[in-house]
Amino acid sequence: MCSLPGSRKPLLRVAVTGGTHGNEMCGVYLARYWLQNPGELQRPSFSAMPVLANPAATAACRRYIDRDLNRTFTLTFLGSTATPDDPYEVKRAQELNQLLGPKGTCQAFDFILDLHNTTANTGACLISEVSQNPFNLHLCHYLQLQNPGLPCRLFQFEPPGTESYSMDSVSKNGISLELGPQPQGVLRAELFSQMRAMVASILDFIELFNQGMEFPAFEMEVYKNLGSVDFPRTTDGHLTGTVHSRLQDHDFEPLRPGEPIFKLFSGEDVLYEGDSVVYPLFVNEAAYYEKRVAFLKSEKIRISVPALPGLTPSSTQTP
Amino acid sequence: MCSLPGSRKPLLRVAVTGGTHGNEMCGVYLARYWLQNPGELQRPSFSAMPVLANPAATAACRRYIDRDLNRTFTLTFLGSTATPDDPYEVKRAQELNQLLGPKGTCQAFDFILDLHNTTANTGACLISEVSQNPFNLHLCHYLQLQNPGLPCRLFQFEPPGTESYSMDSVSKNGISLELGPQPQGVLRAELFSQMRAMVASILDFIELFNQGMEFPAFEMEVYKNLGSVDFPRTTDGHLTGTVHSRLQDHDFEPLRPGEPIFKLFSGEDVLYEGDSVVYPLFVNEAAYYEKRVAFLKSEKIRISVPALPGLTPSSTQTP
Ligand SMILES: [Zn+2]
Ligand SMILES: [Zn+2]
Repeated sequence: MCSLPGSRKPLLRVAVTGGTHGNEMCGVYLARYWLQNPGELQRPSFSAMPVLANPAATAACRRYIDRDLNRTFTLTFLGSTATPDDPYEVKRAQELNQLLGPKGTCQAFDFILDLHNTTANTGACLISEVSQNPFNLHLCHYLQLQNPGLPCRLFQFEPPGTESYSMDSVSKNGISLELGPQPQGVLRAELFSQMRAMVASILDFIELFNQGMEFPAFEMEVYKNLGSVDFPRTTDGHLTGTVHSRLQDHDFEPLRPGEPIFKLFSGEDVLYEGDSVVYPLFVNEAAYYEKRVAFLKSEKIRISVPALPGLTPSSTQTP
Repeated sequence: MCSLPGSRKPLLRVAVTGGTHGNEMCGVYLARYWLQNPGELQRPSFSAMPVLANPAATAACRRYIDRDLNRTFTLTFLGSTATPDDPYEVKRAQELNQLLGPKGTCQAFDFILDLHNTTANTGACLISEVSQNPFNLHLCHYLQLQNPGLPCRLFQFEPPGTESYSMDSVSKNGISLELGPQPQGVLRAELFSQMRAMVASILDFIELFNQGMEFPAFEMEVYKNLGSVDFPRTTDGHLTGTVHSRLQDHDFEPLRPGEPIFKLFSGEDVLYEGDSVVYPLFVNEAAYYEKRVAFLKSEKIRISVPALPGLTPSSTQTP
């Protein structure tokens, strides 16, 4: 019998992946550092494995070489017969699937923590693909308690298709951590330290869970994806304006109907025409221009999270 | 007889180039906008020509395709016999040299204004390659007077070799305008507006000069290049630390001996070991990692700039 998300077994096989996008420098340099200094990822019950996910894109300091690796972990790509003409990231996804998966099987890692940066002013943001996954909710709450000065929000993003495709979908459970703002190709000391501290807290949480700690119930706010808004564009795809300065850097703050979202080069404002308050995020993220996304909209909902019961002694044994 | 830098003739052939680096979005989008709306670049005595300098890199949203275009305008590259295997930017530099040069000849444009962004917190910064070029000093002073809220500094950067290589070295006189901070691949509305307003002011200044206005003498501060400082690195070139948060975003502020410049991943600080105060700039610029530059050092000097006499009626006639 296989340990699936929400299962009641300790998480012993844990990976921390950086450089899934090769120009997001906190994860790139943390992964490189841990590959030389693995002790920082060790806890009594497990040792997390550092992985530099996209070495070729990292060497080129680009998001990807041929296609976005973090959209490539579908069963179709992972199960396709390898050919020499495959895009680099398809080959690399298959390698990572061998290392950390295979996705959807009992052999897969228990948990992948995938590290990202954004040019948007998101602060710290955890992205969970599985709606209201109790383990991830408790993990986020633990981070919030450990780092009261750093807003750490949980964004629930269920992929638009029927199938997950992200790096952290390869393991039985996983989460990705976004930290911003940081330009592509730049390593800012404060963000590097913040991400390093957050990874340490996440490993501490997993250790407490593995030791059988029970985590009490609580209430929290989560941000749920409502879809994206594209830039104003010409018919050939070039921008005719950009994010309005009233929205720029205001990730996770309420956007009300009638408020400006874009400033056209002609000088006019474009107003938000929705009929309810939304919470934008990934506002003016560099990598999303090509995805036709100026920002994502979310709704803020308050949820009650039940207690996460402690593992029983039998379940804490290594299987 | 040919009109050379500092000459006493009106500047009638003026170009404004954007996208010399394809991921510096203010210049990219201003050039595109002006190609559709050229009226904004017209003045009574001249019409500046907008040029998208590196279309292939712009389409790929990368700094360059094969090599840095803004280091390719040497007489060696410009004079080499074209072959199909030439790097893209060598071909493009030769095309631009046909359009706006040839460099060093009487046929060259009178003035090129080359637009750039940086991830560093430079604010507005003009870069002049010719030491104490009177026209450029008056131009910078005019911008300072027109935009009192926006610090507009003049950086004198004489290329380390014997030969100029930048886009604006193709014309008889020229200057480049840097505006930061802006991530690569991101267009921020406020910086777009600022750059647009500064270009308008520069064209206004050229128009006043062409009309025969005399500009009085003044004193100003200029920043003179003292060389670069690299990141701390391993023997294989990877960083072992990054810019210290005490230096990050402090472009053009004094850096004193003994103050921290880098934070190593091991936690230690690296201190500035020079023996005098310097003024750093381009602090943690994304594009300079590969050039092994964490920041440039400059000295701040105060100079007296003599009056720029008005053109005499004969010299204001079109040649
Ligand atoms: Zn990413
Ligand atoms: Zn540039």
